[in-house]
Amino acid sequence: MDERVREHARTLIDWSARIEAGDDVVVRVGPDAHDLAVAVAEVSGERGANVVTTYASGEVTRAYLRAHDGDFEEDPEYERALLANADAVLTLGGGRNTAATADVPGERRQAYDRARQDVRKARLDTKWVLTEHPTRALAQQAGMSYEAYQKFVYDAINRDWEAQAEKQSRVKDALDDAREVRIVSGDGTDLTMSVEGRVAVNSAASVDYDSHNLPSGEVFTAPSAAEGEVVFDVPMTINGRQVTDAHLRFEGGRVVEHAAAQGEEAITEVLETDDGARRLGELGIGMNRGIDRVTDNILFDEKMGDTVHLALGRAYESNFPAGREDEANESAVHVDLITDMSEDSRIEVDGEVIQEDGTFWFEAGGPER
Amino acid sequence: MDERVREHARTLIDWSARIEAGDDVVVRVGPDAHDLAVAVAEVSGERGANVVTTYASGEVTRAYLRAHDGDFEEDPEYERALLANADAVLTLGGGRNTAATADVPGERRQAYDRARQDVRKARLDTKWVLTEHPTRALAQQAGMSYEAYQKFVYDAINRDWEAQAEKQSRVKDALDDAREVRIVSGDGTDLTMSVEGRVAVNSAASVDYDSHNLPSGEVFTAPSAAEGEVVFDVPMTINGRQVTDAHLRFEGGRVVEHAAAQGEEAITEVLETDDGARRLGELGIGMNRGIDRVTDNILFDEKMGDTVHLALGRAYESNFPAGREDEANESAVHVDLITDMSEDSRIEVDGEVIQEDGTFWFEAGGPER
Repeated sequence: MDERVREHARTLIDWSARIEAGDDVVVRVGPDAHDLAVAVAEVSGERGANVVTTYASGEVTRAYLRAHDGDFEEDPEYERALLANADAVLTLGGGRNTAATADVPGERRQAYDRARQDVRKARLDTKWVLTEHPTRALAQQAGMSYEAYQKFVYDAINRDWEAQAEKQSRVKDALDDAREVRIVSGDGTDLTMSVEGRVAVNSAASVDYDSHNLPSGEVFTAPSAAEGEVVFDVPMTINGRQVTDAHLRFEGGRVVEHAAAQGEEAITEVLETDDGARRLGELGIGMNRGIDRVTDNILFDEKMGDTVHLALGRAYESNFPAGREDEANESAVHVDLITDMSEDSRIEVDGEVIQEDGTFWFEAGGPER
Repeated sequence: MDERVREHARTLIDWSARIEAGDDVVVRVGPDAHDLAVAVAEVSGERGANVVTTYASGEVTRAYLRAHDGDFEEDPEYERALLANADAVLTLGGGRNTAATADVPGERRQAYDRARQDVRKARLDTKWVLTEHPTRALAQQAGMSYEAYQKFVYDAINRDWEAQAEKQSRVKDALDDAREVRIVSGDGTDLTMSVEGRVAVNSAASVDYDSHNLPSGEVFTAPSAAEGEVVFDVPMTINGRQVTDAHLRFEGGRVVEHAAAQGEEAITEVLETDDGARRLGELGIGMNRGIDRVTDNILFDEKMGDTVHLALGRAYESNFPAGREDEANESAVHVDLITDMSEDSRIEVDGEVIQEDGTFWFEAGGPER
């Protein structure tokens, strides 16, 4: 076995999900994530955890959803019981075709998801973690050879997460103390947001850090009262459509103007979903410098070092103090847009520059790759 | 999709497992059984059943068992709850290597199985069915090309099971009424067994026939008081060792002499397991004429048309009238041995010939292939 796969499994089990002896672990295996599943089973066995493997195939889901009449049973008890009795749910992404479910009607998928809210909730009540095994399908999505893509993925995942968490904690502290954040970039971005009274999350790829993605590597909070302009120069796929150089203008926290070099109608659709879709739900500062390129996969792109992402729509409750979660933006959508901050850019917190051209204030010698 | 895969799925769902709208179905998917899993999901969706897919990989199991210290938790509740709340469990065999678990120590595997008796029992309390997707690994085991092996598998599985059940019911009736069965073959076989007071099972690949294998195609009962000699001329793999031309001599229902052209020590080991291992647990008459060759896979071999198999060891309770299940042979082993009856052979029931050279008494024009 490729030693990088084993390290991935150890990172997932020990750092991300904090699996202990006796834990009841559900491992959801993508069709091409077999090698990672073997490594996860091995490390789980070493730790004395219990393992049930489920099969997470887009083609199986597509066949089922298209054949069903759409009148789905609510929260089948056998599936709910599996998850409600589990301590951890580890999703090992690894499909064979990123477009495997492209011809499932949206309403059918939504009806299925609506019928299974308690199943979903049971999963989210565990130590859940989402990771990806590098597959040829994802390499293709990234426009990369398989070998180069594998290296990319392991550079992003097999990191010194303790050191990463320590570095990120400085940015979290800066945001927690702040009233206002401003991002400025030579491409026309100049946006000011309030973050007063919000709690930043040090998303360090571990459930102990309120973080459920591997890789992670970002600090995020829930901004409000956005004023100004922002250009998202990192290309994105939104609802199946390529979006480049999206441009938003905010007044009083709401988008009042938008444009894009490509895919403008995808942004228009998002904005028209509901009232919350015109307001921000997340400001994230990407700090994973193992991720040094765009691969058209949001799990990786939004954590890319020296980027900032803003999400239109729903906010995370973890960004609000206890008892104030109802202030969170409750839109039906959460769409991330990313802007590069590595050149001719700065992030200011209450007027003080915390990052300039990709270098944080605590990185005197320039960014540490 | 290959239309034969869809037919396999329909046979499994409709004929074998009798899946109905609202049934909670667990589908256990072997790593190379993906195509069948897709077809099973499609047909399950059409029927309005619920589906949870689990991943049944020998390599995952091997990695887990070898890494674990062997002190397994008893019947983890999350896994038991999944199965105890399920209506049906469909196992789609399809590994990539029939020797995937060859280096798992036997004691480790046995400790794992012992710790999970309630999980196993919960599965056996559902409408469970075991089937196989044709894979390259199984083709290799059979010494066949992949294309020829696929044809072989679908000839065995995609049958007119209604007609098969009807034909088998005649043999069941003959055995149910009988006191004694005798099998005679030119290779030296002449064995007489009592079947008095036993119930033959018409194993027609459907839970409605007490049959949990697809393919099936046999009638079996639980014999006692065997007297005489039998030669098993169909080669078998027993505990990883090839056995050819095994020869047993019975007196008063017990094996008193044994030999084999190859693998004699494998038979010796079986016989020495416990007292029940020297007595018979099953007499089966193979009637699936879609299976016309040995493929070194007991799921298929024992159902081959014009064969008889005898099992040393444990009997099935379904062969005993209600209240008399405690008469069943309770050995820890159940090892099938097969003899060809297509030439120079006959089966007698209470002195009447019911099959001669592979032709049953009701097949005037010779065996119907």
